[in-house]
Order: sequence, then structure tokens, then C-alpha cells
Amino acid sequence: MARTVDLVGDRWSLLIVRDAMDGAATFTEFRDRLGIARNILTDRLRRLVEHGILAQEPAPSGRRQTYVLTEAGEDLFTTVVALRQWGERHAFGAGEEHSVLVDERGAAVPELRAVDGAGRPLGTRTTYVRKVSRSTGPRAGTAG
Amino acid sequence: MARTVDLVGDRWSLLIVRDAMDGAATFTEFRDRLGIARNILTDRLRRLVEHGILAQEPAPSGRRQTYVLTEAGEDLFTTVVALRQWGERHAFGAGEEHSVLVDERGAAVPELRAVDGAGRPLGTRTTYVRKVSRSTGPRAGTAG
Repeated sequence: MARTVDLVGDRWSLLIVRDAMDGAATFTEFRDRLGIARNILTDRLRRLVEHGILAQEPAPSGRRQTYVLTEAGEDLFTTVVALRQWGERHAFGAGEEHSVLVDERGAAVPELRAVDGAGRPLGTRTTYVRKVSRSTGPRAGTAG
Repeated sequence: MARTVDLVGDRWSLLIVRDAMDGAATFTEFRDRLGIARNILTDRLRRLVEHGILAQEPAPSGRRQTYVLTEAGEDLFTTVVALRQWGERHAFGAGEEHSVLVDERGAAVPELRAVDGAGRPLGTRTTYVRKVSRSTGPRAGTAG
């Protein structure tokens, strides 16, 4: 997880990814949505491109660059949904209105939940991190 | 989602939450795991307590404070799993070893996936954000 937060774990990078998922593509579109300083936006877009989360493409008109999510960037969808749903549960007061993520039929996206192979909910008390030692060499079953 | 990243969307806060889920509780434990400067750790712990993600409790010995996840903090489990799983898919080279999140039987936690009410996978192209206007007044069905 540390590597993920190194790549996207700052406020602006996550918000840029969210807005790209929501249709923003040009520098101006990101700037207008985020109200972010030009130099910070320039830096974060450059880093997201370097890290393979966004790719630069010429706009159809050919006059501007656009930023599109790579496959790895699109794959942050689950993380963005998890962050959004946590916020809906904990970061708004009772009765306070907020936007909702919906599917193509307009139904709210069900809450994400980590489950085991049998569908049972998992949490911090029912999971643990299995460290992989650098000194164990090739894993069993791994050719070469 | 912006509110969530305001609360936990910096590198250290997310790593502190992860380590709390993994059993860290005292200042020294967080510092040793993260290799973080004392003043930054002090600041981030204070903010996580202010934001209701960690709570301070005296250690059983009574001599030290410990930091425990609140219910809202525990509920970041899904987000932490999403970040970890994205990292496993995109932030490691082929064959590069990394730790694995497993359940009590030692089986790897299945990949989180946003699905609609019928279990169909959802993504950025099949979802959209429904904005809630501030000017719509009380919602239908909401007394008062």
C-alpha cells in the first residue's frame, strides 16, 4: 500500500484522477474544477503521466493536449469508490446533502465490501498481512 | 470524495491508519514502522484524533497513551484494501515479491470490485456522479 500512496496519495492527485473519471481532460478543465494553482496542477499532471496513471494525447482538434486515464488509472476506480463511500458514511452531517455515484439506470452504487472467498465480510480483525521475506528465494511452484 | 481526501488523503495519514489496522498503537510503534520524523508523526496523530479516525486511550499499564481506530477509522478498511490491491496490480514489477493480505485461513483476500445491484462489474464508463443541488430544499419523504 505504501507504493500506491507514493503514487497517488496526495490530495490533488486523487482529485485529479476522480475528475478524469468524471470527464475532465484538458488542463483548463482540471483547473476550473479543482480551483488549483497552475504550477501545482502542472506538477501533479506531470507526475501522474510519469507514473503511468494518465497519458497525454492530442485533442481531436489537434490544438491542445488532453490527459486520459491509462488502464492503471482506470483501475483506480475501486479506490475512488471506496474513498467516496467512506466520505458519504463519515464526512457529512445527518441530512447534509452530497452527490451520489449512480449506475446507468440511476441506482446508487452498492457499498464496496471486502469479503473472503465464501462471501463473508472481512475486516481488520479477520485479516492479516503476510510478509514476504526477501531471503526466501523463488517461491514454490515458480519456475526459474 | 474531496472530504475524505481532506481527512486522510496524505501519505502519512493513510500509512498511519494502515499500521493501526496492523496492530501499531503507541507513538513509538508508529515511529519505528514508518521511519517518520517525530514532529510530523505528532501532527498527523493529532489530526487523525481531531477528525475522529483515531482515539487516544491510556495503555493498560497506564503509563502511556495509545491510539486506537474509531469506528470510522476501522471503516477505512475497504479503502486500505483497495489501495493495497491496486498497488499489487500496478506498482510492482513482474516477479517482484510483496506482502499479501490474507484472511484467518491464510487465503488471499479476493479483489474488491464495484458492482451494481445485480452483481455486474461497474467502472468509470458505467457510472456517473449525480450532483445534488443545494437549492432543492428538503428531500421528498424527509420529515421537517
